[in-house]
Amino acid sequence: MDQKPIPDIVIGRLPLYLRELQLMANGGRMITSSQELGEHLGISAAQIRKDLSQFGEFGKQGTGYEIDFLIENLRQILKVDRVWDMIVVGAGDIGSAIARYQGFEDRGFKVKAIYDNDPKKIGTKIGSFVVNDSANLGEDIREIDIQVAMIAVPGPYAQKVTEKLVEAGIKAILNYAPISINVPEGVRVQHTDPLTHLQRMTYYLD
Amino acid sequence: MDQKPIPDIVIGRLPLYLRELQLMANGGRMITSSQELGEHLGISAAQIRKDLSQFGEFGKQGTGYEIDFLIENLRQILKVDRVWDMIVVGAGDIGSAIARYQGFEDRGFKVKAIYDNDPKKIGTKIGSFVVNDSANLGEDIREIDIQVAMIAVPGPYAQKVTEKLVEAGIKAILNYAPISINVPEGVRVQHTDPLTHLQRMTYYLD
Repeated sequence: MDQKPIPDIVIGRLPLYLRELQLMANGGRMITSSQELGEHLGISAAQIRKDLSQFGEFGKQGTGYEIDFLIENLRQILKVDRVWDMIVVGAGDIGSAIARYQGFEDRGFKVKAIYDNDPKKIGTKIGSFVVNDSANLGEDIREIDIQVAMIAVPGPYAQKVTEKLVEAGIKAILNYAPISINVPEGVRVQHTDPLTHLQRMTYYLD
Repeated sequence: MDQKPIPDIVIGRLPLYLRELQLMANGGRMITSSQELGEHLGISAAQIRKDLSQFGEFGKQGTGYEIDFLIENLRQILKVDRVWDMIVVGAGDIGSAIARYQGFEDRGFKVKAIYDNDPKKIGTKIGSFVVNDSANLGEDIREIDIQVAMIAVPGPYAQKVTEKLVEAGIKAILNYAPISINVPEGVRVQHTDPLTHLQRMTYYLD
């Protein structure tokens, strides 16, 4: 029987559940409840139960969720029970911070290379990486079979870089450039722009 | 007459509309349509019309939206027709990137100061800022009457820093720490964690 696809907004909450559960597990906790998870995350317990029930039965009435078991299942659902190689395009402040960030691998990702088009940056070191020439981007992606990329280039370059990435086979892009990028069907994009987050909050300020 | 509050998910789309309109205006454009906006943003034209109609009548049937007029209105609605001072807590890679970022002021924000608790960082320069001692955080916030803060500290410090900020009067927090933070009613938080964005996309990959 065909199943209806699960709404992306539900998928978007699963990483938050996973992150919170992993924090609990790191603190030595074994069992939690949708109430407790909800309080930590600012999401209602009913919503959490409903979201999780789309994927199976993970909790028991009255006893709650076994944290390790739920973590294992969420990692499988989100496909982060493996490690995804990824590349970073743009070796400015943000790109460099990403390349140096140590928190990816525990959570399913590994930066393999960083690229820039600035001759002054190409060949310099960032953490353990040497900045590559973005002219070689397409070839490298095909060679090492990478599906995930982060874009941290200035806005005016973002769409062009995107097209190059997609052409070479990238299927998921996290975009730090302050501009919306367009991708063809079958490629996923997530945008992260501090300004859009900030502007969403000032609406509520006096 | 009392009005129903507008859903936060609608508020969350307005900064995207504003950003896209500003890009169009920078390119010399005068008029756009919900169709065109929608294509650029991956949001349906009907959704855009519905969202905007909650705040007034900004377009004309058949002629579309005057870009400058809609920008002016969105900036007023989001209260970014003024400049909000903000502080950055955490002078690591991300905090430093934020402090150096030049794109805030055009869009309603201005970094006033950056803080850290590491004696090796306090007193050093990041762009045009000298890193302040986070011991003085509360006092400074009260003195210069700041409502907006960004947190870019390691996860284990984030909740404690949050409490200090809230106690001093901060009302909006953009959190870069990879952990959910809890705030009392009346304080807004937005989280930005590359891992939750990435994990939301791998669900769809093979």
